[in-house]
Amino acid sequence: MLQKTACFLVIGNEILSGRTQDANTRVLAQALNAQGIRLMEVRVIPDIEDRIVRTVRECSAAFDLVFTSGGIGPTHDDITAECVATAMGAPLVRHEESFRLLEAALGADRFNAARQRMAYLPEGSTPILNTVSVAPGFSIGNVHVMAGVPSIFASMVAWLVPQLEKGAPLVSASWHAAGLKEGDFAADLATLQKTFPTVDLGSYPYHLPDGASGVALVAKGYDGDLVGKAALALHDLIMAHGREPLAGEAAHKQPA
Amino acid sequence: MLQKTACFLVIGNEILSGRTQDANTRVLAQALNAQGIRLMEVRVIPDIEDRIVRTVRECSAAFDLVFTSGGIGPTHDDITAECVATAMGAPLVRHEESFRLLEAALGADRFNAARQRMAYLPEGSTPILNTVSVAPGFSIGNVHVMAGVPSIFASMVAWLVPQLEKGAPLVSASWHAAGLKEGDFAADLATLQKTFPTVDLGSYPYHLPDGASGVALVAKGYDGDLVGKAALALHDLIMAHGREPLAGEAAHKQPA
Repeated sequence: MLQKTACFLVIGNEILSGRTQDANTRVLAQALNAQGIRLMEVRVIPDIEDRIVRTVRECSAAFDLVFTSGGIGPTHDDITAECVATAMGAPLVRHEESFRLLEAALGADRFNAARQRMAYLPEGSTPILNTVSVAPGFSIGNVHVMAGVPSIFASMVAWLVPQLEKGAPLVSASWHAAGLKEGDFAADLATLQKTFPTVDLGSYPYHLPDGASGVALVAKGYDGDLVGKAALALHDLIMAHGREPLAGEAAHKQPA
Repeated sequence: MLQKTACFLVIGNEILSGRTQDANTRVLAQALNAQGIRLMEVRVIPDIEDRIVRTVRECSAAFDLVFTSGGIGPTHDDITAECVATAMGAPLVRHEESFRLLEAALGADRFNAARQRMAYLPEGSTPILNTVSVAPGFSIGNVHVMAGVPSIFASMVAWLVPQLEKGAPLVSASWHAAGLKEGDFAADLATLQKTFPTVDLGSYPYHLPDGASGVALVAKGYDGDLVGKAALALHDLIMAHGREPLAGEAAHKQPA
């Protein structure tokens, strides 16, 4: 099974302005991990037509899968559907089933021209179910377009991602060591990385609210057997530095 | 005064894996806003040499300023300094002042080969002060390289950004309207955007924990006078839809 790569495009000005903090990347990354798809890049770009079209084209060619969030609501700055249509060379057309669903949910009087725009998808798209507020996302080619509002985004990811073709699943194992600092064992970890070239070894310092600190050591890869062996070696590395290796994630739930 | 553009490169696997949520973008974006520098793109990329070198080159050419976070610690996967050196065509050399500072702070016995790597900067760099853990960031050309740990990143931003040449400051004004939905006024907002082409008008739905919801309407731009006029028009737009325009940010502190 081949490893699949993905890119996530966060479209909109609110994260670039510092107004809101992105919460969608983590939701998508975790869902993709479970499906064996590796998130290789995230790009946050503004609501500028030319920038969206160019980035969608570039990323659609460079990665197996592209996911987007934002810009599919009813307002004038919601231009993602038009831009993806242009990028993929498909005209924007009324999607009859989505039109009927929206009309039924909103009632004919509230279903004004602005809201009707949300039923226009690039020709040949498959809608992505929105269980929160009806207006759909859509998939066209290898591009999957979703809403930016976190509750809606999460519902779309939960519906879409399990339907995607699986890649080889990423396996990870970790140990943490209270009181240890990265610089103490960096040379040993570098040596270990050479011993396990196909396993990704990482160290993550943490600082807890109570003042305690330490390092989490993580092994990740697509060969579960090798990841297990590398994790055992991380365990021994911590012991060799006179610390107690602790299992699980509890001690680094609040990384500083 | 010309508007300056910036790109932020978040380097490292922990955000792409869903392990941690990015908190640095917001800190940088707000500091840049205050300095009149506009954050135009964020890219999150993995610890892969070729990807880092290529992205730094591309973004250094495309934006006035580039900021990076992550990958300047002592471990084997901390390769940002080497990659930026390659991208900028400058060899990595020992920075004597940083070397002495680190040695004094850590003590000669703890200042091992792995930690000494943190004193190697691309030739011609200016160090960026680290008031948390001594190991510096650095500026070379238009690229500013900082740590990924949020407390250190924030201290570096606080030291660096006020020293950068100012651009035209971004001015913003907002009103919020409880109970209003984006689709209700989308057509009017689009018309208003045409009236104020140089002001960026946006609407941001919010959902509070107590179940209340509404929309914040925001005007942003580099001409304070025009932003003020646009904000007045937003106020009137809310009134025209039978709602009470409320000032300030209180009602959308917790956007869903």
